[in-house]
Amino acid sequence: MSDLHVYDTTLRDGAQQEGLNLSVSDKLAIAMHLDELGVGFIEGGWPGANPKDTEFFARAATELRLRNATLAAFGATRRVGGRAADDPLVRALLDSQAPVVTLVAKSHVRHVESALRTTRDENLAMVRDTVSFLAGEGRRVFLDAEHFFDGYAADRDYTLEVVRAAMESGAEVVALCDTNGGMLPDQVAEVVADAVTSTSARVGIHCHNDTGCAVANSMAAVDAGATHVQGTINGYGERTGNADLLTVVSNLQIKRGLPLVESDRLREATRIAHSISEITNVPPYSRQPYVGASAFAHKAGLHASAIKVDPDLYQHTDPQHVGNDMRMLVSDMAGRASIELKGRELGYDLSGDNELLTRVLARVKALELRGYTFDAADASFELLLRREVEGGGYDFFDVESWRVITDARGGEDALSEATVKVLAGGERVVATGEGNGPVNALDHALRRALAPAYPELDKLELIDFRVRILDAAHGTDAVTRVLIETSDGSTSWETIGVAGNIIEASWQALVDGVTYGLVRAGVPVR
Amino acid sequence: MSDLHVYDTTLRDGAQQEGLNLSVSDKLAIAMHLDELGVGFIEGGWPGANPKDTEFFARAATELRLRNATLAAFGATRRVGGRAADDPLVRALLDSQAPVVTLVAKSHVRHVESALRTTRDENLAMVRDTVSFLAGEGRRVFLDAEHFFDGYAADRDYTLEVVRAAMESGAEVVALCDTNGGMLPDQVAEVVADAVTSTSARVGIHCHNDTGCAVANSMAAVDAGATHVQGTINGYGERTGNADLLTVVSNLQIKRGLPLVESDRLREATRIAHSISEITNVPPYSRQPYVGASAFAHKAGLHASAIKVDPDLYQHTDPQHVGNDMRMLVSDMAGRASIELKGRELGYDLSGDNELLTRVLARVKALELRGYTFDAADASFELLLRREVEGGGYDFFDVESWRVITDARGGEDALSEATVKVLAGGERVVATGEGNGPVNALDHALRRALAPAYPELDKLELIDFRVRILDAAHGTDAVTRVLIETSDGSTSWETIGVAGNIIEASWQALVDGVTYGLVRAGVPVR
Repeated sequence: MSDLHVYDTTLRDGAQQEGLNLSVSDKLAIAMHLDELGVGFIEGGWPGANPKDTEFFARAATELRLRNATLAAFGATRRVGGRAADDPLVRALLDSQAPVVTLVAKSHVRHVESALRTTRDENLAMVRDTVSFLAGEGRRVFLDAEHFFDGYAADRDYTLEVVRAAMESGAEVVALCDTNGGMLPDQVAEVVADAVTSTSARVGIHCHNDTGCAVANSMAAVDAGATHVQGTINGYGERTGNADLLTVVSNLQIKRGLPLVESDRLREATRIAHSISEITNVPPYSRQPYVGASAFAHKAGLHASAIKVDPDLYQHTDPQHVGNDMRMLVSDMAGRASIELKGRELGYDLSGDNELLTRVLARVKALELRGYTFDAADASFELLLRREVEGGGYDFFDVESWRVITDARGGEDALSEATVKVLAGGERVVATGEGNGPVNALDHALRRALAPAYPELDKLELIDFRVRILDAAHGTDAVTRVLIETSDGSTSWETIGVAGNIIEASWQALVDGVTYGLVRAGVPVR
Repeated sequence: MSDLHVYDTTLRDGAQQEGLNLSVSDKLAIAMHLDELGVGFIEGGWPGANPKDTEFFARAATELRLRNATLAAFGATRRVGGRAADDPLVRALLDSQAPVVTLVAKSHVRHVESALRTTRDENLAMVRDTVSFLAGEGRRVFLDAEHFFDGYAADRDYTLEVVRAAMESGAEVVALCDTNGGMLPDQVAEVVADAVTSTSARVGIHCHNDTGCAVANSMAAVDAGATHVQGTINGYGERTGNADLLTVVSNLQIKRGLPLVESDRLREATRIAHSISEITNVPPYSRQPYVGASAFAHKAGLHASAIKVDPDLYQHTDPQHVGNDMRMLVSDMAGRASIELKGRELGYDLSGDNELLTRVLARVKALELRGYTFDAADASFELLLRREVEGGGYDFFDVESWRVITDARGGEDALSEATVKVLAGGERVVATGEGNGPVNALDHALRRALAPAYPELDKLELIDFRVRILDAAHGTDAVTRVLIETSDGSTSWETIGVAGNIIEASWQALVDGVTYGLVRAGVPVR
């Protein structure tokens, strides 16, 4: 592995993106994905400045079992005129227990004077004092030199003085930040090369995409001697976003041959990028390099026949390197192979049955065209496969009808009430359920209706519910995708529903969730 | 003006994007926008190969009054073993009446042999014959050298031979195409510099974004001597798209000082990019450089206080250069400074009123703790601010109660029906509405109930609906956040609702959306 640092700041700088708002649980879940991807460092937030981030580090200390990555806490140099040891925000960085502390410091003279309203010397003292205090407390200290490139243009010597002050005080890395994002690759290369040769620092790079060059600027910095690269998953970030870390890593690893993460981890890149966008609820960008849904999709009729002869003539890299797929080849072996593998997992040997494999693949593709996504709904996929293989047999009950009413009067909270009519175990049952939302009410009513026939449903619990509106251009006329996670106390499973009506989509996912629970409980099929 | 060619291929290569499908009228409308922007060349399509494109050129000849741009028809070199003069597709290029013809030609030996299945010499003959025939007929001929960069790596001499063959036969430009999009800027720079010095050609560049470097690659080519740049509006194109022409032009003009289009035309860039995305029906990408809705939006509280002092310290260029605007986002990271700035945007001078600022900030923070996120809901924040500043007065109607029923029987689709009871304009109104979902039904019922008092609501439309379950650990017991986008046909606004019940959260957002619509329509407050 190369010793270049892959430093992820999705949870801190990425969270600055417009409309992105992460809970502490979201952040913990994203951190696990980042660790799985194999990044070296995960910047978790700004403890002390943001209560949510303080809580993140507290929970991370007990809940987060990182295998590869090191956690970094972000903070600022101490206050003007104070002492680092007395600064409550600096203390909060220690309290976070993160092994790495990344301090943001001013390096642009105009920012020192106009935003910080202090002197050049005091700013240098703030850097020295804060870095040496934290290093003295046993932390690895990285410095984010804010507005470095604009500052370099205004006063080269001062920016380099900031770098030296940090290094001399014990900083391990000084990351040069193009905070406003206005740089072009040749400028970045020139400044980074100067910083590398004029100081003894390990130089890092932090880019934003305001000129559409965040990735190229990061690459230019590495070419010029930077050995620490910051970025975010899916390029999340303020304004036009940060450098897309997956693109930078893929470029460096695949195009430049720098081994940054193990190659079998990079093969999870597409899945991880999409899983994280499920958590952030920012729709994936289909044109995203390497991991986008369209990144290896071919439309041009010009190419179609030639691609079959020699796919490498028409793709810049093998999409499998990043776990993506070339999409033009409809009967691609990857699709059939994964269905075959899934079947084996469930105890079906499908390898000889081409007709069945083709039928299942066609059904999956047709459903995915309508908005289903089975990679996030294993249990629904398993039910689909079982029904195809065994020719039905998983209908434990018949639904006659369902209805849910939500109402509110005056300023009072809304209430939901559902009625479900089913035929189960030879009986027609009508049951009602209440809830603080329509899906909750339907869930209660459905399980109450099935309880006489299937007492094993009693221990099931609906533990997660996610909604995505597909094709947002049509508002509520669009198709709604609902993912539901159901638990039986020892394990949990995800099911999916897709429909024009959000309640109907939820109902489909609920029915699948309950059905799968009956399969798991060993209820014999009819 | 610089004599560098700005060559737009939105209508041809951009139309290869997945999901993008343009009618002839769409193409004509886009061409008018491109002309207004001041591009030099508009590639309209492939006449003869595509009936829609043949019709585009026929209609363009009579309907399209271009002031600045020259129309280009795209096509291929003649067939193997034939004569250009007899080739029906070459004839169709003449028939298109376009003053410029851009011919795509193979320049990669493996493509010549494996896709074209001919010899190197015959491919060169095809280039010479087709270029000289069209030039002889009075057309300006440009050549797109396909797979040039990959071809250069495989056989440098052959690629340069193709360039020379085209130039010697009368081509005005040879555009080097990174057809598979896998290049990085240093590779592009090296190859372009070699082509410029080794041939007498006017060299052009055509990039795709598969490494996230399409813009940087285009810039690198210009730095290396290319004087013709191809790209598409909004970076539309196959796979990850083409180089985003507006970003390339903005970089070259604003950062490099190359006068490519008149600066008052560049000030229309944001409007034109959005108008074109209305035509293509591809939702605008908010993080797009220069022209994206978020491109100059600031969220970090850290910055807001300093931005007040000196905005240029926090933006890489003046957004007015491209017709965009600086926007302050209110979020839990924001402080008093960002609320003050936001107030200024809305026409309130809050700078002196510390008590009010503190109150608004406290209210925002309290609501954000409950799951609100105002940076994604400008209109709800504006209502909050107006109510705080003016002490109420924005309650155009009182809600007595609402109710929505969703039901399904047998295998039929679910239906939703809502009843809303309101007091508006001194009357009590009970109205019902149906919809393919509960929110849709409530929206219809609410606007029907308010119609007698507020006929201006008739033109409002719900155009986007997003749902986020917060703190997913509790499943449907969690809090639900709903964002709704409402349009009045000329503009749109986002509102938010947060509640335990998804329908109640949606209702809050609907009520805010309608209320804001009444404010915008100029309905006097009570």
